[in-house]
Amino acid sequence: MSKIDQPKGHMTLPVEVGQEEVVLDLYKKWQADALRDSDGTSMPDSLAEQDSDIYSVMCLVRADQKYAYDNPQYLHRKYLMSFPVTAMCETVSISPLDGYSKDKYELDDDSDPKQWWEVRNRTTNQVINVEHWDVCAETNTVQVYQAVPYHEYTVTFLARQVWDSVSMYNALTNDWDGPRIRSLDPYHPECRSHLLNHFQTWLDEHPNTTVVRFTTFAFLFVIDTGEKNQDIYRDWTGYGETVSPRALDDFEKRFGYRLTPEDFVDAGYYNGTYKVPSQRYKDWMTFVQEFVVSFAAELVSMAHKAGKRTAMFQGDHWIGTEPFLESYQQIGLDINIGAVEDGVALRRLTDSGGDQVREARFYPYFFPDVFREGNDPVVESMSNWTKIRRAMLQKPLDRIGYGGYLSLANKFPHFIDHVTEVSQQFGDYLQHTQRTESQKVAGKVAVLSAWGKARSWLQNQARDQRFYVPPRPDVMELVGNNLLECLSGLPFEVEFISFDDIVENGIDDDIKIIINSGDANSAWSGGECWDNPDVLVAIRQFVAQGGGLLGVSDPSALQKNGRYFQLGDVFGLEKETSLTMGRVAMPVSVTGEHYLSQCLTGKEDFGNLSYVYPQADDLNVIVAQGQHLALTAKEYGEGRSVYLGNLPFTTENARLLQNILIWLGANDGQSQSWLSSNPEVDVAFYPDTSMATAVNFSSEPQKVTVIDHKGHEVSLSLESYEWRWLSAE
Amino acid sequence: MSKIDQPKGHMTLPVEVGQEEVVLDLYKKWQADALRDSDGTSMPDSLAEQDSDIYSVMCLVRADQKYAYDNPQYLHRKYLMSFPVTAMCETVSISPLDGYSKDKYELDDDSDPKQWWEVRNRTTNQVINVEHWDVCAETNTVQVYQAVPYHEYTVTFLARQVWDSVSMYNALTNDWDGPRIRSLDPYHPECRSHLLNHFQTWLDEHPNTTVVRFTTFAFLFVIDTGEKNQDIYRDWTGYGETVSPRALDDFEKRFGYRLTPEDFVDAGYYNGTYKVPSQRYKDWMTFVQEFVVSFAAELVSMAHKAGKRTAMFQGDHWIGTEPFLESYQQIGLDINIGAVEDGVALRRLTDSGGDQVREARFYPYFFPDVFREGNDPVVESMSNWTKIRRAMLQKPLDRIGYGGYLSLANKFPHFIDHVTEVSQQFGDYLQHTQRTESQKVAGKVAVLSAWGKARSWLQNQARDQRFYVPPRPDVMELVGNNLLECLSGLPFEVEFISFDDIVENGIDDDIKIIINSGDANSAWSGGECWDNPDVLVAIRQFVAQGGGLLGVSDPSALQKNGRYFQLGDVFGLEKETSLTMGRVAMPVSVTGEHYLSQCLTGKEDFGNLSYVYPQADDLNVIVAQGQHLALTAKEYGEGRSVYLGNLPFTTENARLLQNILIWLGANDGQSQSWLSSNPEVDVAFYPDTSMATAVNFSSEPQKVTVIDHKGHEVSLSLESYEWRWLSAE
Repeated sequence: MSKIDQPKGHMTLPVEVGQEEVVLDLYKKWQADALRDSDGTSMPDSLAEQDSDIYSVMCLVRADQKYAYDNPQYLHRKYLMSFPVTAMCETVSISPLDGYSKDKYELDDDSDPKQWWEVRNRTTNQVINVEHWDVCAETNTVQVYQAVPYHEYTVTFLARQVWDSVSMYNALTNDWDGPRIRSLDPYHPECRSHLLNHFQTWLDEHPNTTVVRFTTFAFLFVIDTGEKNQDIYRDWTGYGETVSPRALDDFEKRFGYRLTPEDFVDAGYYNGTYKVPSQRYKDWMTFVQEFVVSFAAELVSMAHKAGKRTAMFQGDHWIGTEPFLESYQQIGLDINIGAVEDGVALRRLTDSGGDQVREARFYPYFFPDVFREGNDPVVESMSNWTKIRRAMLQKPLDRIGYGGYLSLANKFPHFIDHVTEVSQQFGDYLQHTQRTESQKVAGKVAVLSAWGKARSWLQNQARDQRFYVPPRPDVMELVGNNLLECLSGLPFEVEFISFDDIVENGIDDDIKIIINSGDANSAWSGGECWDNPDVLVAIRQFVAQGGGLLGVSDPSALQKNGRYFQLGDVFGLEKETSLTMGRVAMPVSVTGEHYLSQCLTGKEDFGNLSYVYPQADDLNVIVAQGQHLALTAKEYGEGRSVYLGNLPFTTENARLLQNILIWLGANDGQSQSWLSSNPEVDVAFYPDTSMATAVNFSSEPQKVTVIDHKGHEVSLSLESYEWRWLSAE
Repeated sequence: MSKIDQPKGHMTLPVEVGQEEVVLDLYKKWQADALRDSDGTSMPDSLAEQDSDIYSVMCLVRADQKYAYDNPQYLHRKYLMSFPVTAMCETVSISPLDGYSKDKYELDDDSDPKQWWEVRNRTTNQVINVEHWDVCAETNTVQVYQAVPYHEYTVTFLARQVWDSVSMYNALTNDWDGPRIRSLDPYHPECRSHLLNHFQTWLDEHPNTTVVRFTTFAFLFVIDTGEKNQDIYRDWTGYGETVSPRALDDFEKRFGYRLTPEDFVDAGYYNGTYKVPSQRYKDWMTFVQEFVVSFAAELVSMAHKAGKRTAMFQGDHWIGTEPFLESYQQIGLDINIGAVEDGVALRRLTDSGGDQVREARFYPYFFPDVFREGNDPVVESMSNWTKIRRAMLQKPLDRIGYGGYLSLANKFPHFIDHVTEVSQQFGDYLQHTQRTESQKVAGKVAVLSAWGKARSWLQNQARDQRFYVPPRPDVMELVGNNLLECLSGLPFEVEFISFDDIVENGIDDDIKIIINSGDANSAWSGGECWDNPDVLVAIRQFVAQGGGLLGVSDPSALQKNGRYFQLGDVFGLEKETSLTMGRVAMPVSVTGEHYLSQCLTGKEDFGNLSYVYPQADDLNVIVAQGQHLALTAKEYGEGRSVYLGNLPFTTENARLLQNILIWLGANDGQSQSWLSSNPEVDVAFYPDTSMATAVNFSSEPQKVTVIDHKGHEVSLSLESYEWRWLSAE
C-alpha cells in the first residue's frame, strides 16, 4: 500500500465573497485542500485561482429560473390529499388547497382533474364516481354531490409547486431574499434536453471548477407546507415529489399496471419512510430510480468529458440516487458527500458500496441560528464529533468539510481552535489508518427491517421522537430507542437485510446475529412483513441452529394467531396490548447470575417502560423496570435471544450492546483482543497498519485496560476527549 | 313514604362456632340484624335461634361431594389450549396438560377427542385434519404427523375439573384442609334433578334459615391454574367454564350453527372480558344465561315455597345471572349482595334494575392475611369506605355486611370501633335519605363500550394494571385510567350503552354526554366496533347537534381509513402509532382562557403520557405533558368534545371530571346548586327528604361553600373524615 505521507490537506471549506483573507487563513489552519461555493454564496475570482480543488455547486433543476417561470408545465408536481371535510348535508364543497401554502402550491391546471384527481368517501374508503363531483375553476373548489351526511370526503389532487422547498426554507428561516426559486422536473424530454444544454454551457463557463458538486439530480425530498408556510409533513427520503402524468403513463408501460392517486397519498400517510412500503410504492421507487440514474449518469459523463470530477451531496436530495442502491454505481460519481451529525450518519456515508471518496460535511453550518451571540457552537460540534469519532473507528472516512459563512465562524475564536484540533485529529487518523479497516469481532450482524439495504443506517425513528422537539428541527435527532447510534461505534461487521432477502435468499451463512428493532407498525420493526410463515421459520431455524436474535422495542410485532410478538416463542415473552390482561402478572424474578448480568454497570438507560412480560419458564430476566421487562436473555435450541425494551444512545448502553452481541454471537467464551470495557473509551486495532487507538468520549480523564492481539494487557490513561494512537506491531 | 324510624339494624354478620359471645357483642355494637354462615363456618345452634335473619350459604353445585365424586361425567369442564409446541421435525408430540395443574385438571375421557378436540397449526392458523393426529391414552399425549418444521402446534382439549377453584384457593392461600371440593354442572338433566332433590332436603333441614344466600347457581368464574397450582389466567366475568358436549349440541339446535373449540380458546385469549366479544361468544353467553336463569328461578321458587327469602352474592359467581341483564329479574331473587371495595363496585351493586334489597359486603374479610400482627386493617377499610361513601351519595344502598372470622377482628379493638362508626354513619344515611335519590346535574351521561349495559360499572382494566402487582391480587385494583371510580361519586345520571344499542336504536334523547374510555383493542374502547360508519355518523351527528363527547386514553381507536382515532375529527387530535412520524410536531400551545383551564387546581394527575398530538387549529389544549396532550377541548357543530390522556382516581381528578361533564353538557352557563368545588368534600342534596349532606374524603379538616337550591350560600367546616347531615327545607 502506498503511504499518504505529506497530505496536501483533507478538508473542503466554503468560500465567501469579501472574506477572502479569512478563507485563506482558515484554509491553512484547518488543513483544507478544496474550496466550494454553495447556495447563497459564489466563488470569488481570487480564490478560484488557488492551488486547490474547486467544488462548484450544481443544482440543475433550479439552475435556469427563466425557463422554469416560462414553462410551468415542467415544474415539480405532487399528489396532495385535501384535509377531510365532513358532509353536513348531501352536497360537500371542498377547496383542495385549504390548509396548504398558497405561496408554494397551485392546482395543476395542465392535467384534467376528472382523469388525474380522485374524490373519496374516507368514512367508507369508497372512490366517488367522477360523475358525482365537479371542479369549479373560478373558486378552485370541488363540489361533491349525493354525499352521505357525517361522512368525511377528500379530494386527491395534483399540485404544481411554484416555490422550491429549499428556497422557501432559506427565505423564511435565514431571511434570504431574492426571487422564489422554482424546480424543474427533468422527466419531461423537452425539459431534460434543455437542462442538459444548460449544464453544458455551465461546464464551459466554469473552467476553474475541478469538482461538480451536485446537490440534487432530479427530485427533492418531501416537505408539505401548510397554510402559514409552516412545514406540516417531512420525509427526507420520500418519493412523493416525483410525480407527473407523463411518468405515470410510462410507469404503466413499464410495470403493466396503473398507479392511482391513492397510491401516493396513502390515506394521508404519504408512504412515510417509517411505514412498511407497499409493493406498488416500491415499484414506483424502482421506476424513479431508473430514470434518475440514467439522467445523473448523463450529467456525470458530461462533467467527466469536461475534465471535472463529480460529487453528490447526499444530505438532502438523493431521491433515486441513494448510495446503498446497486444502481447508484452506474452513475459514475467520484465523491460521496454526506451531512454527518452523529455516528449513524457517518456510517450511512462510509458503509455504502463503491470506491467513491467519502467526505463528511459536519454540523453546525456556519449560520446565524447557531453562530449567534451567547451561544457556544463548540457544544454542538463536540457532541457530534465524539459520536462521529466512535463510528470513524469502524469504517474509513476520507475527507471532511464545513458549510456556511466563514466570517460568522471567525467571530468565535474558540470554535476556530476547536476545528483546528478536529482537523488535526482527522489528519492523524488518515495517517495511521491509511484507509484500512479496524479489527472486528467474529460474526456478521444483520439488521432486519422492511427496507433492508436500501435504507441502511437510516434512523429508526420512533414514536418518542414526535414528542421531543429538538432545538433545531431540521436536524434529525433521536430520543427513545437509538440502537443504531450505539451500534455505529462498535467493532462488528454490520449489514442491513430485508424480509424479502430472507424469503428469496434465506439467511446468509456469514450472518451470526439478527437484530430487529423498532416500534410496532413501523418499517423498522416490519409490521405486516411478519405475516409470512416463511420468515418465522427461517429465523426460528437460524436461532435453533446456533444464531443470535436481538429484539428491541417491538420486535416481530404483528397481532396474529394468538401472538403480538410473532417470535415471542424465541424471545420467551409477550407484550400487553390489552388482549391478555387476564394472564396473571407474576412478580418478575431478576437474575444476577447471567453473563449479561455481570456486564451491567448500573448506569444503563432502558428508556420507556416496555409493557412486556415473561412467557417462558427459562427466560432470564436481566433487568426489569418494575414489572416491565427491560433486558432478558433466553436459549432457543443451540442459539440465543435477547430482548431489550429500549436502547437510547449512551456510552453505557453502547457498551452493553457490545456485550449483548458478544453473548448472542457465542463469543463470550473467549477473551476478545482490543475491546474496551470502559464505556467512555473506544479502542480499535488496525491490523494492516499495526496501529491501535483509544479515544475518550468524555470530558473527564479515563483509564482503560485492554488485551492486545498477542494476549498482553495494555493500560492507557486518557485526558478529557483525548484521541491516542499507539504502535502495536 | 313510610319513614324508617327505629330500624332494627342494617348489617349482616358472619357467625363463628365457639365465638358466640363475640358475635352477640358485635351484633349489638354494629347494629346487625342478620347472621350468616359461610364457606368454612357453620351456624352455631345458639345463634340460629336469635331474633334475627339467618342467612345460610348455599352453593348447590358443591353441596353433594359424594355425588360429585361418583359422577365425574357431570363435573365442570372447559376447553383449554395446550401451550404451543414448535415442530422440530415432521412429528410433534404434545402433552395437552403440560403447564397446567394436574391437581385440578384431567383430560375429559368422556368425550371423544376426534370429535371434541382440535389440533391447529398456530403459525398458519390451519386446523389439522383428524387423520393427521392421534391421542395416546397411556401417555396422555397427542402425536401430530406431517408437521411443518418450525411451525407451532396446539391441541385444544376438553379438561375435566377435579378441584374447584375456590376450594383450591382456600386450601392453598388460607391453609384450609379437608377434601378437595368438586363442582357439578347442572346442565345435565340427571345432575340437575339430583341437585334439586338435594336442595329440597336442605331446605327441609334448615328451618331456622330465613334467607338462602346463593354464592353460585351453576358455573364459576374462570381461573386457569398452572403446573405449580398457581393462577395463570383469571376472568371473573368469563364464560369459559360453562362447556359440555351436551350444551354444545343444544346450542346448535338453538342457534342453528355449531361452536368450535376455537370459539372458546380464542387463540389463547379465551374471550377475556376486556376483549371485544365476538357474536359467537355473545350467542354462547345468551345460551348459558337462558339455562342458568331457568335453573336459578327453579331454586328460588323452591326456597320461596319453603317460606324463605333468597339472596345472591354477586361478588364472584354470577355467570348467567348478572344483575344488569334483563333476564335476571326472571329469577325472582329478593336480595343482591355485592362485594364492595370502592365506588365502582358499589355502583355495580346499586345501579342494576329491579327492586331487590342491596347489601354491600365490605372488605377486608376477617381473614389472617389482613388481620395479622403488625397490620392495621383500618387502613384498607377506611380507604374503601371513603370511596364507597362518595358513591353511596348517588344511589341508595340498603344494607351492609362483613365476612370472615369475628374472633380475628375482635383482636383489633381499633377496628371494632371503626366498624361501629361505619355502621353508625350508615344508619344515619338510611335515616336521612329514606332510600331516595340525590339531586343530579341535568343530562344523562352514557358510557359507551362493546359490552354496554351487560357489563355496567365493570372496571375498565387497562394495560397499566398488569404491571401493577397489588398486595392482594384477589382484589381487583386499578391503576392508570380509572374514570369509572371518579364518575361513581359524581352527581350525574349514568347509564352504559353498547355499539349495538347505537346501531339498533340510535342515541336516546335523554343522553347528553357520551363517554368512551379505554385502551385501544379493548372492549372498553371498542376496537373493531368502530369499524362501522353508522356508529361514526350517529356520534358525529349527536355532537354536532349539541351533545358532549368525552374520550379517555384511546377513544374510538381503530387503525383505518387514515385515522387511528376514528373520531379524531371530533376530538381534533390523533395518536402517534408510528404511522405519522413525518407530521411535524409543532410546539403545543396551552390555553389558560378556557372554562376548563379555570377549573384546574394544578394537583390533577393525568397519568401516563398519551402520545396524542393536535390535528385541528381550533383545538384548545388545556393541559399538556411536554408535547403529549393530557386534556383538550373542542367545539364541533353545536356540541363539544373533550379528550383526556388518562384519568387515575384522585379526588382532584374526580372534581375535574365533574367540571368536564358540566362543560360538555353545556351546564357551565348557570350556577349549579349543591355542587362542591372542594375536591376533598362531596356534597349531595336529597329533594325527597329535604336533607343535604357533606362528606370529607380526607384525613384533614376541610371547608366547603356551596349554593343551595334557593340560591343561598352555605358554608361548612368538616373534621377529618366527617360526614355531616343538615336539614335543607
